[in-house]
Amino acid sequence: MVIRYKNSNIDVAENASGADVAKELLGADEKKIVAVKKNGQIQDLFMPLGESCEIDFVSLESEEGKRILRHSAAHVMAHAIKTIYPTAKLTIGPATDDGFFYDIDFKSQIGEGDLEKIENEMKSIVKANFRIERKEISRKEALEMAEEEDETYKIDIIKQIPDGEKITIYKQGEWFDICRGPHVRSTGMIKAFKLTKIAGAYLHGDQKNKMLTRIYGVAFPSKAEMEEYFARLEEAKQRDHVKIGRELEYFTTVDIIGQGLPVMLPRGAKTIQLMQRFVEDEEERRGYLLTKTPYMTKSDLFKVSGHLDHYRDSMYIWGEEGVDKEVMCLRPMTCPFQYQVFLNKLRSYKDLPMRLGETSTLFRKEASGECHGLIRLRQFTISEGHLIVAPSQLEEEFKGCLDLAIYMLKTLGLYEDVSFRFSKWDENNREKYIGDKKDWERVQGEMRKILNDLGVEYFEADGEAAFYGPKLDIQIKNVHGKEDTIITIQIDFQIAERFGMYYVDENGQKKLPYIIHRTSIGCYERTLAYLLEKYAGNLPLWMCADQLVVIPVSEKFEEYAKKINDKLVFNGFRSKVDTRSEKMGYKIREAQLQKIPYMVIVGEKEEQSGTISVRKRGNIEEKDVNVDEFVMRLAELVRTKSLEIK
Amino acid sequence: MVIRYKNSNIDVAENASGADVAKELLGADEKKIVAVKKNGQIQDLFMPLGESCEIDFVSLESEEGKRILRHSAAHVMAHAIKTIYPTAKLTIGPATDDGFFYDIDFKSQIGEGDLEKIENEMKSIVKANFRIERKEISRKEALEMAEEEDETYKIDIIKQIPDGEKITIYKQGEWFDICRGPHVRSTGMIKAFKLTKIAGAYLHGDQKNKMLTRIYGVAFPSKAEMEEYFARLEEAKQRDHVKIGRELEYFTTVDIIGQGLPVMLPRGAKTIQLMQRFVEDEEERRGYLLTKTPYMTKSDLFKVSGHLDHYRDSMYIWGEEGVDKEVMCLRPMTCPFQYQVFLNKLRSYKDLPMRLGETSTLFRKEASGECHGLIRLRQFTISEGHLIVAPSQLEEEFKGCLDLAIYMLKTLGLYEDVSFRFSKWDENNREKYIGDKKDWERVQGEMRKILNDLGVEYFEADGEAAFYGPKLDIQIKNVHGKEDTIITIQIDFQIAERFGMYYVDENGQKKLPYIIHRTSIGCYERTLAYLLEKYAGNLPLWMCADQLVVIPVSEKFEEYAKKINDKLVFNGFRSKVDTRSEKMGYKIREAQLQKIPYMVIVGEKEEQSGTISVRKRGNIEEKDVNVDEFVMRLAELVRTKSLEIK
Repeated sequence: MVIRYKNSNIDVAENASGADVAKELLGADEKKIVAVKKNGQIQDLFMPLGESCEIDFVSLESEEGKRILRHSAAHVMAHAIKTIYPTAKLTIGPATDDGFFYDIDFKSQIGEGDLEKIENEMKSIVKANFRIERKEISRKEALEMAEEEDETYKIDIIKQIPDGEKITIYKQGEWFDICRGPHVRSTGMIKAFKLTKIAGAYLHGDQKNKMLTRIYGVAFPSKAEMEEYFARLEEAKQRDHVKIGRELEYFTTVDIIGQGLPVMLPRGAKTIQLMQRFVEDEEERRGYLLTKTPYMTKSDLFKVSGHLDHYRDSMYIWGEEGVDKEVMCLRPMTCPFQYQVFLNKLRSYKDLPMRLGETSTLFRKEASGECHGLIRLRQFTISEGHLIVAPSQLEEEFKGCLDLAIYMLKTLGLYEDVSFRFSKWDENNREKYIGDKKDWERVQGEMRKILNDLGVEYFEADGEAAFYGPKLDIQIKNVHGKEDTIITIQIDFQIAERFGMYYVDENGQKKLPYIIHRTSIGCYERTLAYLLEKYAGNLPLWMCADQLVVIPVSEKFEEYAKKINDKLVFNGFRSKVDTRSEKMGYKIREAQLQKIPYMVIVGEKEEQSGTISVRKRGNIEEKDVNVDEFVMRLAELVRTKSLEIK
Repeated sequence: MVIRYKNSNIDVAENASGADVAKELLGADEKKIVAVKKNGQIQDLFMPLGESCEIDFVSLESEEGKRILRHSAAHVMAHAIKTIYPTAKLTIGPATDDGFFYDIDFKSQIGEGDLEKIENEMKSIVKANFRIERKEISRKEALEMAEEEDETYKIDIIKQIPDGEKITIYKQGEWFDICRGPHVRSTGMIKAFKLTKIAGAYLHGDQKNKMLTRIYGVAFPSKAEMEEYFARLEEAKQRDHVKIGRELEYFTTVDIIGQGLPVMLPRGAKTIQLMQRFVEDEEERRGYLLTKTPYMTKSDLFKVSGHLDHYRDSMYIWGEEGVDKEVMCLRPMTCPFQYQVFLNKLRSYKDLPMRLGETSTLFRKEASGECHGLIRLRQFTISEGHLIVAPSQLEEEFKGCLDLAIYMLKTLGLYEDVSFRFSKWDENNREKYIGDKKDWERVQGEMRKILNDLGVEYFEADGEAAFYGPKLDIQIKNVHGKEDTIITIQIDFQIAERFGMYYVDENGQKKLPYIIHRTSIGCYERTLAYLLEKYAGNLPLWMCADQLVVIPVSEKFEEYAKKINDKLVFNGFRSKVDTRSEKMGYKIREAQLQKIPYMVIVGEKEEQSGTISVRKRGNIEEKDVNVDEFVMRLAELVRTKSLEIK
């Protein structure tokens, strides 16, 4: 039989397994192989390949290999549990992104305190380095074996395996599990693992069923990799914007107000003000007209726009159609309000492109439990905008929107962290969208062409479009790896007609424009959250509410400290003198904890020479600094919106 | 008998009337006297004074004299109507601020077109210069006279005059009216009048009664005064911010959104942005901390603050207490949200005074019909603020708030137009307020002392306090004379306790602060309305969205125009080139209509000499202007927020 591997054909014995081939081809590297891919399908390394085929090997270090390792770790845990608690009954134990879990029915409840005991037993099993063996058995055998062990849940699982499908067990030492596999070669390959959490889980995830005990763990091919994982986890916890945001007094939430409705404290409010001014000014420079439209409307407006049909569940609405005289809504989007600016008078092609920008507050109904920090809110403020463009202007204006978004991301230092998603409709879920297939395909085609012309590296996603058209979503992950959209640019080929937004073209004809829905910096709260995480609270100088603190080494030098502070404030910096009757060391430590970018220290030497000493966040100390030069240096950092934070 | 007049005692005949005394004392001026004040009470000039008393004369030109004139004009109108329509039945015809009306039951409907006919008949009556004579009659005589004329409504009026009260008629020519008087001497004194409007009016103002015809008119002692009145009216109409605001595209309202929810168009949004930045920067300079708190909350917050009890009718609330899981409100005020900033951590006397500022959007339930332009809205944005102060800081901080408000008013040029109202509680309406009498009196006393110490010229108003404390309201009138509050500063001695807003004082004791609720510039929309009216749309340069337009005299000079425009834009001005293919005159006229402060005109002469010609709004033209000097001159106007608009 002939095996094709990496463009070569190799003759092998008729009963050869993946392991046999690996041994022949890979030499010493063979030990790291945990499975084989036969025509793209992963299968057990020791199963005969059975026919001529194309193969590839799965090494322990690959993502697929780690999944196999983690599944095997689940087996080792089940094995350990059955050793310690023979009456425990097993259900299922799959791999997860970083580890595994197993749902188990214990006769008497166990707790976090029991995890160490289980871990120790697992270590013995790993140390014993049992070979993990696959065996095909008949349904009858399987049922007998499960009954003998009184594994009632396994009996159910076996019964649900369709007729004709092979039933396999994986055995290590005396213990076995009914399992499709594959697994690593032996328990000794599981070099690093840890049990992390114990939780309740309903059988089959159904609240009507019995509550089982789910034990979570993580597993890695090496101790080093596991240490790295826990370090990353700790770092994420430290960088979490909710933690940092509260500690540094950027924001708080208050029970009496509610979830998803953060109170921006002075530091957070100031940073958002600075971002808002930056965005409004940059947009003005790029030909945007500012608008300020109401947050509330009669429901009529959202009837026309289609939001009442397609977005009702996320909207705050008072009153009931047909019952109340006036039904009022809070806006979940700005679109139909900004259209009124276009509709204010008769428009001609000379008015296009019309670029409208607004610092816009939106309201979306979210369950309390779904709200998260500054990322998922019931009320948020977005740098909103709509461009009303003639069809011939679509590409150029889309490009302008993308250019602005990238400029913003680069200015904030977030550009390297984003990915681009071309979000399309879902043809099989048409009731979520307005308009017909022909138009959707045409406009998605136009958008793809624009993205390709612009050289955007994007991935495609079905079912992520807006109800009125396709989107380019700029995606970003938070410290915990959860992805969300930070910026979006959308093409709308439908709503203009609904609102009668015509313009008169060069030939005096009534025409419908395209509308681009876009944001430049996203939602201020959400973007601030990503910034706090990115910089672990050390925001760039220009956007810090508190840029400097002047610390006199003792009371004697307060006058000089105030003089220096006055100079800094006069030059437009946000600076304070710390005149509290505390030790200098204490003040420095506190300013560090507060992540104030610069500390200016002044004492006798400084006063005599008319200089200052400077400590930057990174803790490097500069002495004999000329005040005017320092002011100019900082002014340049602010002017250029420098990301330098060290 | 002895008459006292202007500190002199004069002997007069026992039966002397006011007219007799006037003739003796005033000489030629006597002709202008229309009534006499006897011990401060106005009475008919020709009635005997009857006893020794102090008198004063009422001249036609005085406010009281004009009221008498206008009441007489109502008589002349009724006289004319009875002449033309003998079957018309009279009811009542009082004077108003600028004129008079009379409610009349016409046998067949009359219209606007009939007013000229009535006016002409009135002119005949005025020309005839009938003497207007007072006559006392008995109730019996009065009823007989009314019955003879079939004046059924007058019969009702006579029947309602209490027993013992004198009944008088005023007669001019053959016509008379049952009337208390007084009136001018003769119909000839009514030198200037005009009928202005015809409207329906229910008898006694009660919808259940018959609808009568009300005819309105105005009357003045001279034609010049009447012309001035109509000119003022026209001016007010032209200055009305709703008219100007729409014409100059500051804002619009849209039926589909609703009343009281204006859409700020780019020009209005830009001006509000400029005001907002000015306020936020000035407040930062004065030690305010910016906050940004949510517009929405669970009702719990407003339960604690007392708003749900005292302000519920003006609030947007979803859900019902005790029925729905979560009852959510839109905020009508910012107070309890900003308190959360204070409550974020333990506070000591070192944190006080804490000055919190916010550009805050509020929502108040108003009936559609009560909304007006940018003055009375359902949603508006206010420069909100709360100062949390130790009792010893109250006066100083109140002073700071007042100083800031006055600085804002002076910067905007509105200071000369405001008056100060000390708004107190209404002791007889206690359910509108929280707290007890003792505390209210104490705090009102403190506030009065502060106002007196600061030398504020104020008037007092009962029943205008907030439900939690007294206020200083800064009042302003719109072009139509309607007064509203533009700025308010309030002392709150109650709410801190409700929210547990304690601080630790110098001795480690838990103490309650006072709270000052205040705004610095008021609601941005409302203040903009007063500015548009004050300046008839010619806003000061610094707050204009469109500051300049550069107009080339012909296409040939477009390049030069663009060069000049680039220079202006580079220097931070909002300037555009008008390159449309229109005549220069047309462009200038349009820029004038748009109230653009400066037009820069460039042609051959300008290009050759590298200068510009400048037309200011006032239309004065400057030639040979050096561009750099012009830029510096404008920059200075912007920097100083100059009110110079000519």
